[in-house]
Amino acid sequence: MYLGGSISEYSFGNIQTEGDNVRRLCSFFAVMALALVLVGCAATKAPLASDPLTIASQGSFFVGGRNVKSNDLAMVGFFPPTGTITVDQIYVHYQVPVAAQRKPLVLVHGCCLSGKTWESTPDGRMGWDEFFVRRGFPTYVVDQASRGRSAADTSAIVQVKSGRAGSDKLPDVFGAGQESAWQIFRFGPEYPKVFPGMQFPLEAQAEFWKQMVPDWSRALPTPNPTVPALSELARKLNGAVLVSHSQSGIYPFEAASIDQRSIAGIVSIEPGACPKASDDMSIYKGMPILVLWGDYVDQHERWAGRLKACREFASVANRAGAKAEVVVLNDVGLPGASHMLMQDKHSLKIGAWLADWLDRHIAK
Amino acid sequence: MYLGGSISEYSFGNIQTEGDNVRRLCSFFAVMALALVLVGCAATKAPLASDPLTIASQGSFFVGGRNVKSNDLAMVGFFPPTGTITVDQIYVHYQVPVAAQRKPLVLVHGCCLSGKTWESTPDGRMGWDEFFVRRGFPTYVVDQASRGRSAADTSAIVQVKSGRAGSDKLPDVFGAGQESAWQIFRFGPEYPKVFPGMQFPLEAQAEFWKQMVPDWSRALPTPNPTVPALSELARKLNGAVLVSHSQSGIYPFEAASIDQRSIAGIVSIEPGACPKASDDMSIYKGMPILVLWGDYVDQHERWAGRLKACREFASVANRAGAKAEVVVLNDVGLPGASHMLMQDKHSLKIGAWLADWLDRHIAK
Repeated sequence: MYLGGSISEYSFGNIQTEGDNVRRLCSFFAVMALALVLVGCAATKAPLASDPLTIASQGSFFVGGRNVKSNDLAMVGFFPPTGTITVDQIYVHYQVPVAAQRKPLVLVHGCCLSGKTWESTPDGRMGWDEFFVRRGFPTYVVDQASRGRSAADTSAIVQVKSGRAGSDKLPDVFGAGQESAWQIFRFGPEYPKVFPGMQFPLEAQAEFWKQMVPDWSRALPTPNPTVPALSELARKLNGAVLVSHSQSGIYPFEAASIDQRSIAGIVSIEPGACPKASDDMSIYKGMPILVLWGDYVDQHERWAGRLKACREFASVANRAGAKAEVVVLNDVGLPGASHMLMQDKHSLKIGAWLADWLDRHIAK
Repeated sequence: MYLGGSISEYSFGNIQTEGDNVRRLCSFFAVMALALVLVGCAATKAPLASDPLTIASQGSFFVGGRNVKSNDLAMVGFFPPTGTITVDQIYVHYQVPVAAQRKPLVLVHGCCLSGKTWESTPDGRMGWDEFFVRRGFPTYVVDQASRGRSAADTSAIVQVKSGRAGSDKLPDVFGAGQESAWQIFRFGPEYPKVFPGMQFPLEAQAEFWKQMVPDWSRALPTPNPTVPALSELARKLNGAVLVSHSQSGIYPFEAASIDQRSIAGIVSIEPGACPKASDDMSIYKGMPILVLWGDYVDQHERWAGRLKACREFASVANRAGAKAEVVVLNDVGLPGASHMLMQDKHSLKIGAWLADWLDRHIAK
């Protein structure tokens, strides 16, 4: 299990403790206790959020990145304008459950959002990052390149502000307004109308809007540097299931085209695009692929078209030997899902359904 | 304990499980196991990083934030230019240990960095975020406003790029070059020289440089919106110790000037500034304050001046009834500390020293 360093080997051995015997005794109790928990919980699937969470390890690291020499890092002040920065890396936060036997999940957020997408929901319930750890999956939550804790290069802004370049050199960065996101995330047909039965926790929408961050993806080269970084991460993990959402929906497929062997499976949640039916499908041979959709898709022209295109992709991919499924949650007894289904009121029911799907389809 | 929502009350109760009796049995085993761990480990102070970590709860939420109506969110494409965004909030990730009895620590990063500062070190060892949880402290790691997962307003960039404003309207965003950061973080007197005995893990410096992100603090109003948000967070936690670093060094003091009762203590690590000796010191009456410094300070003119100014502050504050200490780690047997001392090779020794200081000075 790759942990971005030597965490698992590190111990506090250098720190003088009050007594090594006490330490050994503690370790003995801890192991005994853990054995008790594993024995006691082996037969049950749904842990309580109010139960303590025991994990084998946690931490964060970066994957990818390249050095850029810039003369436009700053205008005035503490730091000089010239120097080297590192960009294009992705920030990864992970948690590994005790005695993990399932393939790791890599959770990738969509447009105008960060890895926060997968953490606590706006109304304060458990996020999928923790849910899947409790279900036995190591989880790796990333911030896409130039988003969140993954650095962007702001040199062009300094360059234009200081008059050394024209405004056309500015990055094509953008934000999503709440009113337009409302419709695109299918909370309703248009702001502030709500689809009947829609399950996003709108009473906590103010907390949700705080999740939205500027999106630099249009200012980045193609493929987005997130893609090779995801491929590298999957390889370091000795195989992973890439779980993407919306704008990142296509990334697991693009990562598979770099190195299909490291992709243990693909879960693409409401992707902005599936691979074209004319693409090379041989790379998906034998690969478990789930394209997952929420509700009200047929009431949004653009999403309806995307669902249709994904069905075509799955059909063509399966003829080439893939194991692709397109699932609309309504059809498995989970109606009312918005585009942000990992945060909907029934997000953990959806998560439980997905965990079962993974157990049925992904080799351990 | 405030958890940003109703996490602690939430259960999986709605999900159909395979058997409630199994669940109850599991809960029984879990409680018994936890009791064993608590009994077994009560007498020891230094847990192994390789021991499993058991936490009562974890998650993330935002504090603060205000809505901004913008006509410059995007130029072309999927999202329209006009809409509402929320900015000035701070992202907070927390973990609460089982049976926590100590005051929460709020960990605030410095210039050009994010909350990643406190997580796994560049060479993959345990970060302070986990270390202090293992030592019994609830920890809350924040991204400052307009940094990391805390949204910035990029409207001015769109405005200038689309020709609706002059380049002087661009935000004063900046990055820190690695060569200049080397000196400011006191890895050595100048890049690439190294101070003798300096403990930062330079063999992993490439991973460290990836932590650095663009800094928007100069583009924000005064006080930085992070400050009132920290005050609000401390109040919601019913009292917290604010732990700041470098550029955020002054923030806990500024938060105390908003509401001193919610500040259980201040730990300012190598602050860019302490309060001026001429400031109102009455707000610090009875307040435990630690200003903590690493090594080689006297070999860096700017840092040397800041240490001197902090000593003057502590002296004046103590005459007004504060409990302020200025500690240079060399003087307590921990030489070789860089400015990034929470990531130095002896970061957990420094953390253990700090945990002991907190246990001696902060009321539980």
